[in-house]
Amino acid sequence: MAARLSTKADYEGLLQSYDTWLFDCDGVLWQGTQLIPGAKEVLAFLRKSGKAVIFVTNNATQSRKMYKGKFEKLGIDAHVDEIVGSAYASAVYISSVMKLPKDKKVYVIGMSGLEEELRDEGISILGGTDPADNVLGSFSLENWTPDPAVGAVLCGLDVAMNYTKFSKAFNYLLRNPGCEFLATNTDSTYPTAHGLLPGAGTVSAPLRFALGRDPLSIGKPAGTMLECIKAKHDFDPARTIMVGDRLNTDIEFGKNGGLATLLVLTGITKESEISGPNASPTVPDYVTQSIGDLRALIEE
Amino acid sequence: MAARLSTKADYEGLLQSYDTWLFDCDGVLWQGTQLIPGAKEVLAFLRKSGKAVIFVTNNATQSRKMYKGKFEKLGIDAHVDEIVGSAYASAVYISSVMKLPKDKKVYVIGMSGLEEELRDEGISILGGTDPADNVLGSFSLENWTPDPAVGAVLCGLDVAMNYTKFSKAFNYLLRNPGCEFLATNTDSTYPTAHGLLPGAGTVSAPLRFALGRDPLSIGKPAGTMLECIKAKHDFDPARTIMVGDRLNTDIEFGKNGGLATLLVLTGITKESEISGPNASPTVPDYVTQSIGDLRALIEE
Repeated sequence: MAARLSTKADYEGLLQSYDTWLFDCDGVLWQGTQLIPGAKEVLAFLRKSGKAVIFVTNNATQSRKMYKGKFEKLGIDAHVDEIVGSAYASAVYISSVMKLPKDKKVYVIGMSGLEEELRDEGISILGGTDPADNVLGSFSLENWTPDPAVGAVLCGLDVAMNYTKFSKAFNYLLRNPGCEFLATNTDSTYPTAHGLLPGAGTVSAPLRFALGRDPLSIGKPAGTMLECIKAKHDFDPARTIMVGDRLNTDIEFGKNGGLATLLVLTGITKESEISGPNASPTVPDYVTQSIGDLRALIEE
Repeated sequence: MAARLSTKADYEGLLQSYDTWLFDCDGVLWQGTQLIPGAKEVLAFLRKSGKAVIFVTNNATQSRKMYKGKFEKLGIDAHVDEIVGSAYASAVYISSVMKLPKDKKVYVIGMSGLEEELRDEGISILGGTDPADNVLGSFSLENWTPDPAVGAVLCGLDVAMNYTKFSKAFNYLLRNPGCEFLATNTDSTYPTAHGLLPGAGTVSAPLRFALGRDPLSIGKPAGTMLECIKAKHDFDPARTIMVGDRLNTDIEFGKNGGLATLLVLTGITKESEISGPNASPTVPDYVTQSIGDLRALIEE
């Protein structure tokens, strides 16, 4: 059973137990463009207390550089190296784990942040924000010359997803021998300040359905993002805690990596999913209402 | 095991056994805009022999009237009442089976043919070809007023599917109590003369994934289309044969309805799916290479 945190002593125990704090962002630090009350103060306090702070987000619409801009806008300190996004992790996976040869290309259903991370890793891409693929309407194979160099299709959240992109991606996966089917992440929904929208998983869903085949998902809860963090930061998993709002991504990610886990209830997961008859089998180590609760540590 | 037809005597046996002939269209009579050689002559011969001919298509992008135009263009006789499409069947289902109250509306992800059939049944619709919903790019719940009268979301093949349509449909299904999730059909792929494209099932796939809930599919293999045929045509199931190119739609539809089934190999299903170690458990009564094979009946 998860430990419910509520007293100053509870949060002090947490502070003494963990040196490295991994944070999911959407639903934990902010909701859309609105900061969670207290998030900024708590992060500043953790840093002042000598803790390492790392931001681990499945959001693949933005590159780490773009994401840093979001932190700045909200008044939170963050260095690019402290941000690990599934766009970056996908680029690292393709270049370093999958080792896609340099003469091969990736067909992307995704946005400019994903393209930026792929290009920064020296990966050649097709699709994405190319105006030719950002159209509404029918698609004909008759006038299309598929590129035999495409060795992977990568799907991230793309608010410009459309039939042309799906048709091309589908045909690459169908025709190009060995073409890998990858997803930055497969979050089913995307939390905003005004409610839920379809998440990144809905971008690969049409291809899953047409092909009868599932993508390899790079983001949380898979371990690739933890490998990306390990490559840049020294940390002891036994003294590291993952803070998130989603059981099937954040909390499972922490558990898979041997980290402690803290669930906050300011995002996707609701109280009914962690207690009562319909509780999920994924149980976080700790639960608190909001990251802002840790302000108890700061107040005199 | 399916009976393989190849001799004139085989086809004569078929002719004598069945009075009503149901035909799938794409992959059986034509591939995209190209007629299957002999299809026209075989259909004319069946009519001349006193057989009832009915066209049963999962294609929901066109109304029956529009589909009749396609037959005319290809030089095939067809009356609107001989055509049963999943767009029409969806409209009949919503008005006659589901009995959606007249003050309720359907949010449509689909094309003009689907809208036409719905309007002809007196159903109020939102979405579809509305220019406001046919846009590429982000969607915000902040500036959107959902319509509480939406009592169903209906997904058909829509080459203009996009994030705005998915976001609205998702929120109707999430927020409007009792809102039904319907699909005209869930064909995974769409055959064209130049290869496969994503099928109608890829339009409901993002919503399935975001909601963790499956739509009720109206088209083949479900029985609603057979009910629509029964409402207009007298026929004896024991003397009726369904001709199709797809095991999991056409052949299962025939079997579910107690009809005989004839598989042709000019469309989706390949030889490897009906024989050998990977054969499907769905076994048609008869198999022939092409509808054109029945020309054996015509030749002297």
